[in-house]
Amino acid sequence: MKALVYHGPGSKAWEEVPDAAVQEPTDVVVRVETTTICGTDLHILHGDVPAVTDGRILGHEAVGTVTAVGDAVRAFAVGDRVLVPAITRCGRCTYCQRGMPSHCLTVGGIGWVFGHLVDGTQAELVRVPFADTSLYRVPDGLRDEQVVFLADSLPTGYEVGVLAGNVRPGHTVAVVGAGAVGLAAVLTTGLWGASRVIAVDTNKFRLEKALEFGATDAVEVGPGTVEEVRRLSDGGVDVAIEAVGYPETLRTACALVKPGGSIANIGVHGVPVELPMQDMWIQNVTLTMGLVDTVSIPTLLTMVASGRIPAEKMGTHTFTFDRIDEAYDVFANAAANEALKVVITPG
Amino acid sequence: MKALVYHGPGSKAWEEVPDAAVQEPTDVVVRVETTTICGTDLHILHGDVPAVTDGRILGHEAVGTVTAVGDAVRAFAVGDRVLVPAITRCGRCTYCQRGMPSHCLTVGGIGWVFGHLVDGTQAELVRVPFADTSLYRVPDGLRDEQVVFLADSLPTGYEVGVLAGNVRPGHTVAVVGAGAVGLAAVLTTGLWGASRVIAVDTNKFRLEKALEFGATDAVEVGPGTVEEVRRLSDGGVDVAIEAVGYPETLRTACALVKPGGSIANIGVHGVPVELPMQDMWIQNVTLTMGLVDTVSIPTLLTMVASGRIPAEKMGTHTFTFDRIDEAYDVFANAAANEALKVVITPG
Amino acid sequence: MKALVYHGPGSKAWEEVPDAAVQEPTDVVVRVETTTICGTDLHILHGDVPAVTDGRILGHEAVGTVTAVGDAVRAFAVGDRVLVPAITRCGRCTYCQRGMPSHCLTVGGIGWVFGHLVDGTQAELVRVPFADTSLYRVPDGLRDEQVVFLADSLPTGYEVGVLAGNVRPGHTVAVVGAGAVGLAAVLTTGLWGASRVIAVDTNKFRLEKALEFGATDAVEVGPGTVEEVRRLSDGGVDVAIEAVGYPETLRTACALVKPGGSIANIGVHGVPVELPMQDMWIQNVTLTMGLVDTVSIPTLLTMVASGRIPAEKMGTHTFTFDRIDEAYDVFANAAANEALKVVITPG
Amino acid sequence: MKALVYHGPGSKAWEEVPDAAVQEPTDVVVRVETTTICGTDLHILHGDVPAVTDGRILGHEAVGTVTAVGDAVRAFAVGDRVLVPAITRCGRCTYCQRGMPSHCLTVGGIGWVFGHLVDGTQAELVRVPFADTSLYRVPDGLRDEQVVFLADSLPTGYEVGVLAGNVRPGHTVAVVGAGAVGLAAVLTTGLWGASRVIAVDTNKFRLEKALEFGATDAVEVGPGTVEEVRRLSDGGVDVAIEAVGYPETLRTACALVKPGGSIANIGVHGVPVELPMQDMWIQNVTLTMGLVDTVSIPTLLTMVASGRIPAEKMGTHTFTFDRIDEAYDVFANAAANEALKVVITPG
Repeated sequence: MKALVYHGPGSKAWEEVPDAAVQEPTDVVVRVETTTICGTDLHILHGDVPAVTDGRILGHEAVGTVTAVGDAVRAFAVGDRVLVPAITRCGRCTYCQRGMPSHCLTVGGIGWVFGHLVDGTQAELVRVPFADTSLYRVPDGLRDEQVVFLADSLPTGYEVGVLAGNVRPGHTVAVVGAGAVGLAAVLTTGLWGASRVIAVDTNKFRLEKALEFGATDAVEVGPGTVEEVRRLSDGGVDVAIEAVGYPETLRTACALVKPGGSIANIGVHGVPVELPMQDMWIQNVTLTMGLVDTVSIPTLLTMVASGRIPAEKMGTHTFTFDRIDEAYDVFANAAANEALKVVITPG
Repeated sequence: MKALVYHGPGSKAWEEVPDAAVQEPTDVVVRVETTTICGTDLHILHGDVPAVTDGRILGHEAVGTVTAVGDAVRAFAVGDRVLVPAITRCGRCTYCQRGMPSHCLTVGGIGWVFGHLVDGTQAELVRVPFADTSLYRVPDGLRDEQVVFLADSLPTGYEVGVLAGNVRPGHTVAVVGAGAVGLAAVLTTGLWGASRVIAVDTNKFRLEKALEFGATDAVEVGPGTVEEVRRLSDGGVDVAIEAVGYPETLRTACALVKPGGSIANIGVHGVPVELPMQDMWIQNVTLTMGLVDTVSIPTLLTMVASGRIPAEKMGTHTFTFDRIDEAYDVFANAAANEALKVVITPG
Repeated sequence: MKALVYHGPGSKAWEEVPDAAVQEPTDVVVRVETTTICGTDLHILHGDVPAVTDGRILGHEAVGTVTAVGDAVRAFAVGDRVLVPAITRCGRCTYCQRGMPSHCLTVGGIGWVFGHLVDGTQAELVRVPFADTSLYRVPDGLRDEQVVFLADSLPTGYEVGVLAGNVRPGHTVAVVGAGAVGLAAVLTTGLWGASRVIAVDTNKFRLEKALEFGATDAVEVGPGTVEEVRRLSDGGVDVAIEAVGYPETLRTACALVKPGGSIANIGVHGVPVELPMQDMWIQNVTLTMGLVDTVSIPTLLTMVASGRIPAEKMGTHTFTFDRIDEAYDVFANAAANEALKVVITPG
Repeated sequence: MKALVYHGPGSKAWEEVPDAAVQEPTDVVVRVETTTICGTDLHILHGDVPAVTDGRILGHEAVGTVTAVGDAVRAFAVGDRVLVPAITRCGRCTYCQRGMPSHCLTVGGIGWVFGHLVDGTQAELVRVPFADTSLYRVPDGLRDEQVVFLADSLPTGYEVGVLAGNVRPGHTVAVVGAGAVGLAAVLTTGLWGASRVIAVDTNKFRLEKALEFGATDAVEVGPGTVEEVRRLSDGGVDVAIEAVGYPETLRTACALVKPGGSIANIGVHGVPVELPMQDMWIQNVTLTMGLVDTVSIPTLLTMVASGRIPAEKMGTHTFTFDRIDEAYDVFANAAANEALKVVITPG
């Protein structure tokens, strides 16, 4: 089979490798029919994720069809059309049993294994460990591009942003950073009845998309950002979602929230962040952070199937496997290319 | 002033009475600009509510303007436009402090006092006890008919149906009974992300209204009702809301819910109900019931102001005070008259 | 091996049967070192559970040691000391993924399979399906009799009584019925800070045990029961737990609770129950019911290991396998024999 | 009357002032029978709280008897024995209605007004605004020293530590800082079933007190603190409560918690805090912070009355009003004096 193989910082190749195969009785093999690229894949290529070593197949998001099943697999059969989520769940460790497979102890203390600790989904075939407890069947009638972003981006915005931020009916929500994951949060705030959703970004294209995805207001970053959001929200928002990952954007999110509110950090941070605890301690606020669990996928599939979440809108560009390098280039400069997520298919 | 006065079972009159006035330092007086009729008013006229005695002014829902304030009132001033909710809240008893003024100990162990334990809102003026903790300011730009149903019907459907039933994103909800309160539940299921809402009723007009108010399916009551709802909901709903108040409708609601689901009873029952506990005990279901607290009014006002809840659609007929008898006649035969709620104004 | 085999209503025998063996890759076999008898076993012997047919080995609670493991089992190995809970969890169906294996779809729509749909634990060996997601390792230092009641009775009282009833710090709780499961509720109310726990029963021995297990008050059933509990609880309890299963005991529980409170039904009902909905609808109460999930076992094991729950006190009588008939006789007349639970070992 | 008056940084005097009197119809006056000193009083004397100006009577904790009531007061009468909590609640603003009077808009955007925005409780008499919604009646049979710490310290440890930290049955909790407020958290972890409570401090006396107050382990601060707590907690605690207020103690708390856990900051911070977000973002942790609301006082009073919380143990030293300077000296050097809280009475 062919796959996108990592060969150290800055180096990758779409090349021939041995076919993925069942290794454990709980494995299945899936033929990848649609995959995509995540910001984490770019971090890996920059050499920022040392656990990823030369020879690893990249990618952790896919829709496809089961081609082989291990002896212990009972919930899936050859021919089933499935969503392969970013997170693998053993189903039995302490964390999996409390619905937090992001930290699954069995697969290495972190539930994200594809394209990281095991070979990934940017390939013609992918081996899926713990298939019974990790895979989701694709509901009839849904197209791949409606489903593939439920592997990671959409549940990340929803779980780490909207759910962790405790959005409730009538709330005003600010989303700082309107990239793919920030927009996923915008797209799902309505599931919990937000009345006002304010997108904050430096990029006009993203702000336009935010309005299209359900934001009620768009604020371009500038010297008066905090004041403008406070003005729109009658003194401060109930929930501020941070979807960038820089110290200043997290501090902006902290400055936007009113007493009793929540700051939900989605951003992946690379350096420490100084927080104004001398002002914040008295504000009765909550700051949350974390890796997605993908346990919201059944809910999100239901909402996509009912027509209430147009998840396919996150896909702005389409490529075939043989043009995957081009897909990476476009995604690496997403803002300049007016790209959110790319859709990659065998062609 | 003039007011609608109860004179014993079957008897009422729009007649001259002394003006409402401040009696306690925490009172205000409100000039009623819009009121409506509740099913409870009909029960009173049938003589079903012995606490209501000859001479009582009826009604417990209003929008109006403050005309006088007691010495201790700080949150409202003469000229303020306010919503008078069905429930009065002292703000200090155990129940009020836990957000459950439906059982406010200070006003008689039950928060519903207007047109019951004190004079009500179907009058030119009404005295409002505990004004600071009971009234809500009407947001600028909202018309009376967008707000008046937030006094009782809308929060009843929302709190006793949607909130008590624990509706969550992706849920399938059945609403048994699509009268005004059942439709209020339909109208607010979207605040918590319901994916499918099935209205069940005997009346075609109400079922049409339900679809207009956001139901995805309408099921006319018949021999196969339970099977039809189960078919639509893949074996049973997550939440069944009962909005009628008969033994058979509550049993229908119980039959619709799947294991782990909730039955939220809104109906006012007059007789005991036999429940099939021999089947239900093993189903891990929850049955809730209760009087509205109206504490969700701020959320509902926000959602109406943001355009997300078209509350005014509940008003199907309009009358002036001098035609209030006619308003009662229409409302008493609501289904036949294709009425939901009536809007009554000074004219 | 030898096992207690059901031979139709009223008939059972401790007899030689083929050894339990691994059948599926996810199975293990456990050598039973301690088991016990549940009220459900008595129901089966009365012929009340038609799904149990001639030839079925009884019992669904055990502590023992793993003697064989299937190819796909990863969390347990031969020699591990384990608790076999009453509920089997596939770990992947909708219900298991939401923490409700009581209704596991994979094992038959009901998580209780031992001594019901598959052979049970009143045997020298037992086959355990879905071992990785169902078994719990016994913490070092705990004796069998401290752990065996965590298979069913203790989590039933805790989950279906204390958790479903939403006991919170400062609450007053009434437990109607102080048999083994009611006492399990008494024993665990302290985990959520109950300030007062009132046991209600007809039997003096059980009431004494209730006081020993942490109840603050014991009320013997009589004409003034409801008034006495109301007097002790300043007008009504926050949570009433029903642990008997008769119409009158459930109605008593309903009568004890104050507005805003919860009634948690644990009892197994055999007939419909008429509830006074004409009085209850306005009380803002919640009635819950259901089968145990046993998902609280890790918490309960922790609390037993920390010395905070003396679970072994539930065992009042001890028998060896060859005297299992006698154990059934004692347990079938538990109140008369001053028995709560029996402990049965190979001898 | 006599009172302790602030006269600018470093200066205070027990001196004659005009008697406290009713000013608003919602006021009462309370004769102070027991008061105490809070760490905040020391901050004021250091000049750290600019809102406190020359002439202000200090103190915000008291037990006493009502001596006068305003015209609108209904819940209290002359002669009632009451607890005056640190937080005043108007009962009607957005924050009060959601149970968050710490940010009451009516009394200045912060619920702490005594000894801050209005005259305080270190006086023979104190005027209490919004008495009906702010005061709590002292249950019969409780002594002042059992109740006075419920005015601030005990609910602060409980609400901002235990409740915000979401302690649940079976949890392991670390409390960093075993001063009065940290010990209040220790004392109340049992209300939510903590199985293991690890106190961390530099001071042996406080660690001894922690063990006496219910901690299971005491860890003296040193180079291996984090490793020792991790060892005791099998890799990390579920909840880390910070009760000091320095950058390093908050970072220690962050380092102690395991994935999915909570860090509850109680400490009052004076400078920004750099948090290792590059490590924390992936840990699925929650950081909370805030001012006490004192809404848990009814629960805590119940638990004290039931004998389950020995609140009086927090009082280590007793003084009369005329020795209040000495009381301040002892409390200002609490660790050296082996003091937790001081009890001050008229004498």
